[in-house]
Amino acid sequence: MKRVLVTGASGFIGRHTLAPLASRGFDVHAVSSQARPSSPAVARWHHVDLSRTADVSALLESVRPTHLLHLAWFAIPGQFWTSPENLRWVQASLELLRAFESVGGSRLVAAGSCAEYATSDADCDEYRTAIRPATLYGTCKHALHLVMERFAEGKFSTAWGRIFHLYGPHEHPDRLVPSVICGLLDGRPALCTPGTQVRDFLHVEDVASAFVALLESPVRGPVNIASGAPVSIAAVVSSIGRLMNAESLVRLGARPIPAHEQPRLTASTVRLRDEVGWTPNIDLERGLHQSIDWWHSTRTSRS
Amino acid sequence: MKRVLVTGASGFIGRHTLAPLASRGFDVHAVSSQARPSSPAVARWHHVDLSRTADVSALLESVRPTHLLHLAWFAIPGQFWTSPENLRWVQASLELLRAFESVGGSRLVAAGSCAEYATSDADCDEYRTAIRPATLYGTCKHALHLVMERFAEGKFSTAWGRIFHLYGPHEHPDRLVPSVICGLLDGRPALCTPGTQVRDFLHVEDVASAFVALLESPVRGPVNIASGAPVSIAAVVSSIGRLMNAESLVRLGARPIPAHEQPRLTASTVRLRDEVGWTPNIDLERGLHQSIDWWHSTRTSRS
Repeated sequence: MKRVLVTGASGFIGRHTLAPLASRGFDVHAVSSQARPSSPAVARWHHVDLSRTADVSALLESVRPTHLLHLAWFAIPGQFWTSPENLRWVQASLELLRAFESVGGSRLVAAGSCAEYATSDADCDEYRTAIRPATLYGTCKHALHLVMERFAEGKFSTAWGRIFHLYGPHEHPDRLVPSVICGLLDGRPALCTPGTQVRDFLHVEDVASAFVALLESPVRGPVNIASGAPVSIAAVVSSIGRLMNAESLVRLGARPIPAHEQPRLTASTVRLRDEVGWTPNIDLERGLHQSIDWWHSTRTSRS
Repeated sequence: MKRVLVTGASGFIGRHTLAPLASRGFDVHAVSSQARPSSPAVARWHHVDLSRTADVSALLESVRPTHLLHLAWFAIPGQFWTSPENLRWVQASLELLRAFESVGGSRLVAAGSCAEYATSDADCDEYRTAIRPATLYGTCKHALHLVMERFAEGKFSTAWGRIFHLYGPHEHPDRLVPSVICGLLDGRPALCTPGTQVRDFLHVEDVASAFVALLESPVRGPVNIASGAPVSIAAVVSSIGRLMNAESLVRLGARPIPAHEQPRLTASTVRLRDEVGWTPNIDLERGLHQSIDWWHSTRTSRS
């Protein structure tokens, strides 16, 4: 029997992995330190704070998963780049690794980040692009990846999904797409940078779906989780304005581009497409449309 | 006032740092999970298991060190290269980092390893030689170094002492120098490889002295802790045979060189010499002589 333990299961990505995992025949055990939304896909929710190391081994002993999908991390916008919580999440993740090995687990997929890569003019390639994280967050993810791959050798199979930009329902309201949508819903102008930065945006349901495909595949090592369709921030913001009939409120160039923002951060998706055999289901137009509807209905139901 | 907390203080290197630290005016707090040899240099011994994270923060809150010399790690010969304990020591070290920052510490020096470097035909250079550890031990040390340097930025000053080969009193009896000395003391032949491997050997008292100098210096980043005097294993073993008048018992070539042993692992000591301003006090001949005397007297007093 396949039994998966999902960490960060109530989070932005995690919540979208549960139904796909169940539909692929997994006995789904979900762990979260926060609220536990009910889901018919989940065999059991575990309310555990993973930073308590003794609780981690007890959890793994009790669940005895064959598969581990490790998505949990500290992710508060504006804080996660530099927070000491990043160290705590490396510690928790190492505890998970040791406990997973102890119970004889066979396949582990964890979330990495595009923030591990050095600045590049080309699409980031898992093996050819240099790893040179500029932030504590990226450094901690990279350090964990190094230890995870080496520790797992000869013990269990691992892959490392490097997430690029993502958006969709339940996104933190301070992030780009929600902040523009919510501003426009309020009739406020969206004061944007010139938006020349080129990025890779993938809808969160697709991010979750790619992680599930990666978990089920035998593919090992780093794999970019991305659309493979580079787009400028200006194009994203303009699309939102157009879909909301509020183009006149989108003010590109109203703010300067922050000094640390790199001009291009895009992904090669060759491994994801050819080795994992996964391609996106939701294009940007449809995904933005769905996000606008979701924020509209969420705010309507609240008021 | 300068107050230093030394981890691994009862260990092979740590025990030799205590008197030099005290003589340089440090208020010395020593931590160990093991036996605590009395020492007039130590203001206070703390009996703490650093893998218990709650105990780490309590210890740092109680001592409030300005300086931290972090030498503790899992070091049992034959096991430390691959043991899951390496992950536990990364976890403990990250806890120390966070706790040291919390109490406003200003200078941290930790022990790295030559095992972080890629195989090289030249002396390993801190910045020019590639980092490509072949073992879990080297990977964990490297991962900790990455996180430590990034985390400390703008908070406190750090350096990372990469230890090469060392020897001297209190060395684990299974390691090269003691095993040859003890065998010859028993009149048994020393069955060695051809000994063509070239290494950098530094007496443990010099290793400790270099760490103390590094701690007191303002030098940041990785610094090789080594003699800068490459020597073949054959020369080391033959010197021991000569000094013990037992040359005929030294059998070079009696065993093959293990496949994973690299032909050369030597250090550039430019940073240690020119930036830290430290040079060795004990040459190999004197150090081996002293080690032979120590093992002789230790075994005599035991029997």
